[in-house]
Amino acid sequence: MPSTSYRGKNVPLSPFRKLVPFADKAKEAGKHVYHLNIGQPDIETPLYALQQVRENQLRVLAYSPAVGQLSYRKKLVDYYQKFDIELTPDDIIVTTGGSEAIQFAMLSCFDIGDEVIVPEPFYANYNGFAQIGSLLVRPITCHIEDGFALPPIEAFEAVVTDKTRGIFITNPNNPTGCFYTREDLEKLARLCKAYDLFLFVDEVYREFCYDGQEFFSALRLEGMEDHVIVVDSISKRYSACGARIGALVTRNEGVLEAATRYAKLRLSPPGLAQILAEATLDMGTDYMDQVTEEYNRRRQVVYNRLKGMPGVVSYLPGGAFYCFVKLPVRSAEHFCQWLLESFDHEGATVMLSPGEGFYATPGLGRDEARIAYILNEHDLGKAMDCLEVALEVYKGVEAQLEPVSAL
Amino acid sequence: MPSTSYRGKNVPLSPFRKLVPFADKAKEAGKHVYHLNIGQPDIETPLYALQQVRENQLRVLAYSPAVGQLSYRKKLVDYYQKFDIELTPDDIIVTTGGSEAIQFAMLSCFDIGDEVIVPEPFYANYNGFAQIGSLLVRPITCHIEDGFALPPIEAFEAVVTDKTRGIFITNPNNPTGCFYTREDLEKLARLCKAYDLFLFVDEVYREFCYDGQEFFSALRLEGMEDHVIVVDSISKRYSACGARIGALVTRNEGVLEAATRYAKLRLSPPGLAQILAEATLDMGTDYMDQVTEEYNRRRQVVYNRLKGMPGVVSYLPGGAFYCFVKLPVRSAEHFCQWLLESFDHEGATVMLSPGEGFYATPGLGRDEARIAYILNEHDLGKAMDCLEVALEVYKGVEAQLEPVSAL
Repeated sequence: MPSTSYRGKNVPLSPFRKLVPFADKAKEAGKHVYHLNIGQPDIETPLYALQQVRENQLRVLAYSPAVGQLSYRKKLVDYYQKFDIELTPDDIIVTTGGSEAIQFAMLSCFDIGDEVIVPEPFYANYNGFAQIGSLLVRPITCHIEDGFALPPIEAFEAVVTDKTRGIFITNPNNPTGCFYTREDLEKLARLCKAYDLFLFVDEVYREFCYDGQEFFSALRLEGMEDHVIVVDSISKRYSACGARIGALVTRNEGVLEAATRYAKLRLSPPGLAQILAEATLDMGTDYMDQVTEEYNRRRQVVYNRLKGMPGVVSYLPGGAFYCFVKLPVRSAEHFCQWLLESFDHEGATVMLSPGEGFYATPGLGRDEARIAYILNEHDLGKAMDCLEVALEVYKGVEAQLEPVSAL
Repeated sequence: MPSTSYRGKNVPLSPFRKLVPFADKAKEAGKHVYHLNIGQPDIETPLYALQQVRENQLRVLAYSPAVGQLSYRKKLVDYYQKFDIELTPDDIIVTTGGSEAIQFAMLSCFDIGDEVIVPEPFYANYNGFAQIGSLLVRPITCHIEDGFALPPIEAFEAVVTDKTRGIFITNPNNPTGCFYTREDLEKLARLCKAYDLFLFVDEVYREFCYDGQEFFSALRLEGMEDHVIVVDSISKRYSACGARIGALVTRNEGVLEAATRYAKLRLSPPGLAQILAEATLDMGTDYMDQVTEEYNRRRQVVYNRLKGMPGVVSYLPGGAFYCFVKLPVRSAEHFCQWLLESFDHEGATVMLSPGEGFYATPGLGRDEARIAYILNEHDLGKAMDCLEVALEVYKGVEAQLEPVSAL
């Protein structure tokens, strides 16, 4: 039998993937599972946009241009203008989800063995895309004590080598919810200029900023036109994860040219979903205002509940719909599995993402987990009940464990 | 300014991409361009399938499972059964077009520097996907004189090295239209077993077989369960190129596991398009029967017209909707560009794909071109008129050229 490739056997997966079979078993056994492990919101996709799909009069569902429909890219120009980002349609390549934009960016800017600096914990799938492109991820550790704020710029500078080609951040951050300020970005920009690095910013949570903070896009950084590459997606802002429409945005002509070549290779982004995506840009701001307000309320629920749990360390995240939490357990992975396998509270349990998989540095995040506040306030409250009760019960469970088996 | 990657600058593109600006200019100048250069049919997408998209009652367009909706994969099992292929839904991974299936297959089976044997001319985008995966393409040359029939198996065996991991073919073939028989596949199977190779078969043109020939899928090869990986797509058979729905099909568990990991990395295939794809499998056979008959007629038109053109060598292709043609010109690329830039017949011209880009061996295919018979019979006739007149006129043009500038 011919054998699978080494890389195929070793694609790094999402931190919660190992737990999925346990969640499935729990559900088969009749337990309700509150999913706070994945960024799939329960918010409805805008009805107006779905209606445009329903009313399409297509006769031939043909390839769209490889870089996406011009009409959609033109509307995206207007969309970005609301964030004081000045672009032309040629600066935008429509991609199959943000995932493909990450891949195009990495392939266009890195050769085999090149290095990218990423503050950790980070969106774990960056590891997989880095593996496809054979690039090396150099992590810079952030800390829960300061809400995972951007580390001092010296920490980044210390790991720059002659193979370093860029810095990759997510703003607002997944998995930490950290909001990076204009000053943060300007510091990174200076470093990128000094060492001639690309600055990749995954801005898919751009719309979800709280406490009156104004989002500052990396595309606004002066003099950084050739350095900045932004990854975007409609998945989160319009609760349209299944559409698979994202974008790669940059003013660097070489990168645009290379990414366009990769885009042509796979012929075109999804056609039906581009109808939906374009329609979202014909709507007013009501939908987004309501959704942001809804997430803001959920954020408060999670923060307030976590604050009241003994031994739990968390913080009020500034953006996105995630927070990280340090739990009074030795192994969050064991705890999360136990939650699904052996625990229930009033017939329900909660699923979290163990923290370790969001770090590239071995050993970090073992007592941490990511919480995605993607359920309505009622369900979120119930999920927090589960977590609170479970932490109490688990104390006794953990005491019975051999130290090694918990780690 | 940070520089683009070496690979990003060198993504190999489709053979006709260089001609696109000339086609655009021709159209701007008011010339009608008959596009026989691209596999985008003018056939309508099945109305029934489009209607199911129109009638969707989605409220949240959520991620589908990474491997695709189970309901769709179950129906695909029935679809494949019509071709005497026995599968379970677990053998099928729904992909974002056939393109993604090619990529998943390559990444799952090849490590950097591994080699794949491909009969040439071949679908040029295989080069690009091979570049992403850093695998080496070893071509085996086929010849127009025998309709690009599969070369003797010894030719394949002669290029097997200790880095060879598989053979990749397209059946029926793009760009040649060659139909590979059961015997052809059995020969390849014996070689793959002897050298423990994967056999990749891109079967996206499965439905388009003519002259009563019965399609024989590689998935039917006995004892080859762990060797065969099939690439599929709804793009061509349902004229739904813009849907971006394909599939990777194999019974090799290691490959399924690896490809599933790559599938999870990009979260899910397009959701709206899966509604369309599933609906196509609820239709009767009328649509496909009519479409196949339509292509068959177009095939005859092209074949008969080419036969009548002095100095032109072609053949009656057995499948798909392409044929290759040897032209009485020194450089098909120069001729194709001249067709767009300097020629018209009754206000129209024709665009073909120059042949050279379909070969991996340098220098081959210079006087050849691919014709995609994807226009209706009337337009196809007009396009053939253009070609016939153009070949006459071009004789004089070529005579004026310096030998070097034509090559």
